[in-house]
Amino acid sequence: MEDHIRFSEEQDALILLDQRYLPVREEAFVCSGVKDIIYALQTMVVRGAPAIGVTAAYGCYLAAREVDPADPHWSEGVMSRLDKLAQARPTAVNLKWAVNRMRAAWQDNEAITNLGELADFWLSLARQIQAEDIAMCKAIGRFGGELLEDGDTVMTHCNAGALATAGYGTALGVIRGGVDMGKRIQVIANETRPFLQGARLTAYELHKDNIPVKVACDNACSLLMARKLVHKVVVGADRIAANGDVANKIGTSGVAILARHYGIPFYVAAPSSTFDPDTPDGNRIPIEDRPPREVTHVGDVQITPSGVEVFNVAFDITPNELITGIVTEQGVVYPPYGETIASMIFHNR
Amino acid sequence: MEDHIRFSEEQDALILLDQRYLPVREEAFVCSGVKDIIYALQTMVVRGAPAIGVTAAYGCYLAAREVDPADPHWSEGVMSRLDKLAQARPTAVNLKWAVNRMRAAWQDNEAITNLGELADFWLSLARQIQAEDIAMCKAIGRFGGELLEDGDTVMTHCNAGALATAGYGTALGVIRGGVDMGKRIQVIANETRPFLQGARLTAYELHKDNIPVKVACDNACSLLMARKLVHKVVVGADRIAANGDVANKIGTSGVAILARHYGIPFYVAAPSSTFDPDTPDGNRIPIEDRPPREVTHVGDVQITPSGVEVFNVAFDITPNELITGIVTEQGVVYPPYGETIASMIFHNR
Repeated sequence: MEDHIRFSEEQDALILLDQRYLPVREEAFVCSGVKDIIYALQTMVVRGAPAIGVTAAYGCYLAAREVDPADPHWSEGVMSRLDKLAQARPTAVNLKWAVNRMRAAWQDNEAITNLGELADFWLSLARQIQAEDIAMCKAIGRFGGELLEDGDTVMTHCNAGALATAGYGTALGVIRGGVDMGKRIQVIANETRPFLQGARLTAYELHKDNIPVKVACDNACSLLMARKLVHKVVVGADRIAANGDVANKIGTSGVAILARHYGIPFYVAAPSSTFDPDTPDGNRIPIEDRPPREVTHVGDVQITPSGVEVFNVAFDITPNELITGIVTEQGVVYPPYGETIASMIFHNR
Repeated sequence: MEDHIRFSEEQDALILLDQRYLPVREEAFVCSGVKDIIYALQTMVVRGAPAIGVTAAYGCYLAAREVDPADPHWSEGVMSRLDKLAQARPTAVNLKWAVNRMRAAWQDNEAITNLGELADFWLSLARQIQAEDIAMCKAIGRFGGELLEDGDTVMTHCNAGALATAGYGTALGVIRGGVDMGKRIQVIANETRPFLQGARLTAYELHKDNIPVKVACDNACSLLMARKLVHKVVVGADRIAANGDVANKIGTSGVAILARHYGIPFYVAAPSSTFDPDTPDGNRIPIEDRPPREVTHVGDVQITPSGVEVFNVAFDITPNELITGIVTEQGVVYPPYGETIASMIFHNR
């Protein structure tokens, strides 16, 4: 599944598979400008840290397209759009990473003298980032697939799949990696309230790929582990601090604590761009509060009484000591994370 | 809130507040016969172990009403209906307890010579069980309220409230007990997928009683505990084994493991009828599988792809070692549970 983020030359627009309507309807969402991109990111038409990065890269191209080339201050117009884009969502570091990479590439490229050249340059760079993301996921799959055994049932939380990346996935990339090695792998997808990415998206893309998947309420996690139905847990990450603390979808830290309680290995899978040298530990990661309606309603069905407040925190922090290993495209990072992340990840940048 | 299970003499029927439509609509469900009672129990028009017991007691009366008094084998007709009633749901021991109590009281009462006398006797006994249940909850509230401190935020899972009992509640009885002592208590209601008893019922009845309540997705539990927003956890129980292992709503054991991880006291509140001397430990408690649709849909909204299987296990087992204390109408039971349950609960029967 690599066509859910697709640039259309005909329409000069980024066409997203609108994930809000999955698994019931497959609808396209057309982004013709930066505002569309920001709307798509904030309302979760597209979500997942690497997919956010790829989408933002195309957003930079659209920024260049919508500024007036006759304006002598066109570069400021582009810059201010990039700033807004980078702030669309706070937690995933890939968003800032992608925008910074686009900006730096422009600044480093002295051949660009006008807006048209910038737009062309950025479109090809966005395509390159998209292609790199798929290659990166497949590398994660090769390293991570080795960690799985034939017959394993793997629990995953949220959707760190093809739909969360340019394709193939990170956590689901590990699963696809194992499957591609000929191992028989079954998946338990935690439904992942409130936005139900597990029930809606993980189940959708694995079922489409004929990888056996069953959905469980988040509440069933402890019982399934107690019944020894879970052999490994693999999840994605929205940001990884320099000490290995991981920000990921709300509920992830709970799954990690339960996995530790039941003696089940707990892996994180993420591209190296998810590691943030500027974030020393999990306490420094900004955590997004999202609109109450995601909790109070499912579709149009109201599930809480009118007038009652709700919590809707989008992410939580899993402390490094609960993580068995972090699978990247450069290999598996093991404790002590402070040292291994510095030498394997930051040293290579 | 004591009128959600109400016997109407006019209609000669048990009128239940249909909990499937809360919090959006307050609708009555009329039980005129045993079939209605069984339907109401199985589809969760009414749920919660003590409320199931009270409903089943009235069901015995309706059994006596619907048998033909001219039939010379009327007592067998009543008995077979009681057997069906007792098997309506497998996990809550209160169901069997209530039916057995009704049957034993009949067998012990030699004054009953015909069906009309039995029906009258059972109606007054059902009313007595209902009144006893409220008194029992208030006693739980007096013992449990002492465990709370002024200013505490209490997390609860599922609904062990007025709606799960004849009134006042067990876990929510502890909270109401604290509030009735003048303590300022706030509640975090875990929404409790799949049936959403926390979001729909706990929030509804506490909001109605002006007790401050906020709803959180089950996934937020670990984050809320990590942020030190939870001072105590109090939950109900569907059955308690002789060694103190507790069967309660799916997800409870996960909350208990997280509470232990974060050093937060974890209490269970239940009437002594919830303790089952015939169940030595949690492994022997039958656990109900419920229909997939409770997981695949919320209302009419489909959340999983068609063709994907789901788990829908209704309860899990919290091992005794994770439980700080069990609040009953006879006092708080503390470890070592095997001994204290034998001396405080079973010895007094």
